[in-house]
Amino acid sequence: VEHEAAAGERRIVEVRRAILDKNDRLAERNRGFFEARGLLVLNFLSSPGSGKTTFIREAVRALQPKLKAGVIVGDLATDNDAQRLRESGAPVVQITTGTVCHLEAEMVNRALKQIDLNGLNLLIIENVGNLVCPASYDLGEDLRVVLLSVTEGEDKPLKYPPMFQSADAVIISKMDLADACGYNRELALANIRRVAPKAQIFETSAKTGQGMGAWCDFVMRQHQDGLARDLSPR
Amino acid sequence: VEHEAAAGERRIVEVRRAILDKNDRLAERNRGFFEARGLLVLNFLSSPGSGKTTFIREAVRALQPKLKAGVIVGDLATDNDAQRLRESGAPVVQITTGTVCHLEAEMVNRALKQIDLNGLNLLIIENVGNLVCPASYDLGEDLRVVLLSVTEGEDKPLKYPPMFQSADAVIISKMDLADACGYNRELALANIRRVAPKAQIFETSAKTGQGMGAWCDFVMRQHQDGLARDLSPR
Repeated sequence: VEHEAAAGERRIVEVRRAILDKNDRLAERNRGFFEARGLLVLNFLSSPGSGKTTFIREAVRALQPKLKAGVIVGDLATDNDAQRLRESGAPVVQITTGTVCHLEAEMVNRALKQIDLNGLNLLIIENVGNLVCPASYDLGEDLRVVLLSVTEGEDKPLKYPPMFQSADAVIISKMDLADACGYNRELALANIRRVAPKAQIFETSAKTGQGMGAWCDFVMRQHQDGLARDLSPR
Repeated sequence: VEHEAAAGERRIVEVRRAILDKNDRLAERNRGFFEARGLLVLNFLSSPGSGKTTFIREAVRALQPKLKAGVIVGDLATDNDAQRLRESGAPVVQITTGTVCHLEAEMVNRALKQIDLNGLNLLIIENVGNLVCPASYDLGEDLRVVLLSVTEGEDKPLKYPPMFQSADAVIISKMDLADACGYNRELALANIRRVAPKAQIFETSAKTGQGMGAWCDFVMRQHQDGLARDLSPR
């Protein structure tokens, strides 16, 4: 989404800064709203096809006895993902962005008004599949969760540093395909740690259930810690 | 990359139009340059991790006896892909875009000056891994080639229509993983045909060699037809 280097025009830098400034303010408004409602909010980001939707559906199901979740999902087109996510039993709102390559705080704010938040304590936002642009847009979330599937290649964190640097948690997905695609576990973990040294890493398969328990424990701990959340902007 | 719907400001629309107008003019300049040099130019686009680099490396090797290729490759960071592509024996130039989510005609124009074009008759441009933004940027290419790996899910063409609508060819990659990930071939083909009815479709595996012969035949035909290429802008 950045055009500075390419177009080399000060005007573009200014417009971009204005957009991001406006987004950052609206993101803080969202953050206050979430805090007031006692909602833990996770922003899920990844390439298209890393398995965000399936992972979220299975995690929502597994968490249901402890935490009640709602989901906001962004795509350029179709409500396929919303339909899949509704199989979890959670309320789901689909945002279709048209040609916009990322979700913005304002879109999330509007979508919130279409969801019954009573009784919910977890809000999951599934961003547009894009490993570049959504990194620049704070949505007011508590945690950024970046997925990386074993089929994508171990060097993605090095090639897309802004996204991985912003991650609080990295979920390695589709571990069931690790052998079939010759996944190099040590290399992948080393690359993630190099770019995102503080991110918690989870090795998972939504198909076999691998790692889903550890993930759910992490989310429940984060929800408890949320009561002690501080007010510093992201 | 489009901010109209999100920010709702006329100013952004104007800046965006100016950027794209400028890019389109420089893309036509590239197109004229390519024509004068007798170069067939392919712009490869896909999600991160669909297998563009491996596919291109193997295709360049297979084509070598008939067509001599050069490669320009774009990434936010690292020259990992350039190193891999050099294993094919072809001259390779890496563009690192920093935070820019796509290649632009001007970047390609600058990269052209770092490559010895004598004796080359094929130029392959590997774009930044991103299924949204690069669709808006003409680079002066003859053909757009969109990759979709079997692990990404069959509905990607429906969820990312601008990219697939712009494709002249769609390469389904990683066919060797089709069984392991429960790939639904009929559904994938139907979805591609719905969004890109005129695109040629190739089912391939760079690992096993499946479909690489058909792809190379297609590229050689396109190079021959290039002699009869018309001058209408894209």
